[in-house]
Amino acid sequence: MPVNLSSFEGPVCPVPIYHRDQIVMGHGSGGRMTADLIRDIFQPAFSNPSLDEGNDFASVSVPTFNTSNGRLIVSVDSHIVKPVFFPGGDIGRLAICGTVNDVAVSGAKPLYITAGFILEEGLPISTLQSIVQSMKSAADEAGVNVVAGDTKVVEKGGADQIFITTTGFGWLDSTIQIGGQYARPGDSILVSGTLGDHGIAVLSARGELGFETSVCSDTAPLNHLVDTILQASPHTHVLRDPTRGGVATTLNEIANQSHVGITLVEESIPLNPATRSACDMLGFDPLYVANEGKLIVIVPQEEAQIVLNSMKQTKYGKDSAIIGQITSNHPGQVLMQTPIGGTRLLDVLAGEMLPRIC
Amino acid sequence: MPVNLSSFEGPVCPVPIYHRDQIVMGHGSGGRMTADLIRDIFQPAFSNPSLDEGNDFASVSVPTFNTSNGRLIVSVDSHIVKPVFFPGGDIGRLAICGTVNDVAVSGAKPLYITAGFILEEGLPISTLQSIVQSMKSAADEAGVNVVAGDTKVVEKGGADQIFITTTGFGWLDSTIQIGGQYARPGDSILVSGTLGDHGIAVLSARGELGFETSVCSDTAPLNHLVDTILQASPHTHVLRDPTRGGVATTLNEIANQSHVGITLVEESIPLNPATRSACDMLGFDPLYVANEGKLIVIVPQEEAQIVLNSMKQTKYGKDSAIIGQITSNHPGQVLMQTPIGGTRLLDVLAGEMLPRIC
Repeated sequence: MPVNLSSFEGPVCPVPIYHRDQIVMGHGSGGRMTADLIRDIFQPAFSNPSLDEGNDFASVSVPTFNTSNGRLIVSVDSHIVKPVFFPGGDIGRLAICGTVNDVAVSGAKPLYITAGFILEEGLPISTLQSIVQSMKSAADEAGVNVVAGDTKVVEKGGADQIFITTTGFGWLDSTIQIGGQYARPGDSILVSGTLGDHGIAVLSARGELGFETSVCSDTAPLNHLVDTILQASPHTHVLRDPTRGGVATTLNEIANQSHVGITLVEESIPLNPATRSACDMLGFDPLYVANEGKLIVIVPQEEAQIVLNSMKQTKYGKDSAIIGQITSNHPGQVLMQTPIGGTRLLDVLAGEMLPRIC
Repeated sequence: MPVNLSSFEGPVCPVPIYHRDQIVMGHGSGGRMTADLIRDIFQPAFSNPSLDEGNDFASVSVPTFNTSNGRLIVSVDSHIVKPVFFPGGDIGRLAICGTVNDVAVSGAKPLYITAGFILEEGLPISTLQSIVQSMKSAADEAGVNVVAGDTKVVEKGGADQIFITTTGFGWLDSTIQIGGQYARPGDSILVSGTLGDHGIAVLSARGELGFETSVCSDTAPLNHLVDTILQASPHTHVLRDPTRGGVATTLNEIANQSHVGITLVEESIPLNPATRSACDMLGFDPLYVANEGKLIVIVPQEEAQIVLNSMKQTKYGKDSAIIGQITSNHPGQVLMQTPIGGTRLLDVLAGEMLPRIC
């Protein structure tokens, strides 16, 4: 005789209640529970023809224009930010934007993303669902598809809630040549907005500031801003998103790759007042604090103003500024001109200032 | 006056000793310590032109022959196996082979790998070095390059030693059409060797068996075996590597994707005697235990014998066997004919039998 399961309540519930609202080890088995998780959480958010085929691989097309001269651009980032939700974003938005941006700074058009999820047993499924929705929104905004995914589950205490590793790939037309090695003396250096906001927002979400702040993370996909820049300056030499280690560390990398010096003008560096005062109280230099939605742009000096004007008209570039220039002096070093006429050396971040920021 | 650092010993050592033999949070900072780790550990192992450019992205070429008709094949896998070293392999070999195999079973030639490392604070650097060397060996054997990587560090207790997420890319010529949806009634089903060895080897490394066993993991890159199969049978319909959930779960997926039935002959299934007895003692069915170096091959019946003969001549296919056939009866179901003339249903693995096996 068939039993009306819906009439049951309490301890005779046919599916243990924790199977339905928390991640359990079985969700990582590769069996029916994994399939259920894919069907209920991942497929509805990310549905696209490659993913929906249900094979262990995704088959995707690449643009056929200029194919024989183009290059595939690839970048990977693991995301371990703590806490997973913070003002202005969450680990899902971060996992998409971080990787989209690393592809975009090559000058390539980001096309596809893969995502590997490592989940801790006991993670609320509603938390996973929020994070996946956030990934979906960011992917839609960037115009990329999540074409392949994988889920593993670690027992409670073996991981911290959720880690997401994303790999992005895009197609680079061979006419574009952008990279950290192409900065030339005389070039102008721009940033696309206020610096250090992401790091301070994550710290505030941890309750580690000891004071209140209104700072929001800048986490954003920057590929459309990159398009704008490349239209304004087809001779763009370097694009880079200054994440861990901040602008100071990234500029040091560029100075070394290009064998040039860099001089910044302190007064010209855009800072959110709330970030500035949080950094003052904590003794941090905002140039070493992570960003997740900012670009460093290095272009020939004669194109700097037109690039700046174009950037200022975009959503994620309205606070853009020219902050310094490339020089043939002091190769490999980044110097900062202070308002009182002094100069200080900005070295690479040595150890760890803000752990688990991305 | 310059100080001869090498003459110092003990507590005045200028670099704390733990910085040199264990992973610390600073190795995930994106600053100097991250750069040191890349220079000392990752670069020497994986050196190739794309990686060596030092940008946040890798720029790689794709084969230009038939490009306009080809497809890019992509697959991602996170690896959390515990313990990280086990008989026959380690997490590094697994991270390369698992992803190479997922790309190869599409019929594509695997070309490139990205790797995202999540490291627990306190991981011995010698352990990381062994794992990276093992990745290098497996990548060389498969003929793929690791073109991009990322390292994050989580505080002690926030992760379990090391997690590695790899994404693989390959190029699929448009003349090849292989997938779980292409099995046809009458096709023969082959496996490339003994089943269930990986799962039992990992369990034995955990000391959870309660008895001694000589079983080694089968972790191996299978792309060269795939080449052999495609040369022997250009009409290969399905290739799949039966990892989590084992052969039984994978065959159920294929039966559903292709809307066909599957009948296996129990006596024909190759099993390592040590794996068989371990499974007997544990009450496991080896058809549900994970493999990391085995292929399921589905080809037209008339090509089965020639494919079998070719597979048997390869390193990773010497114990290959024909184990059953595709049928139009009982679509979506996998049935096993037992030696005593009975039939049993092999369902999908429901929950979790062996956690953290890959």
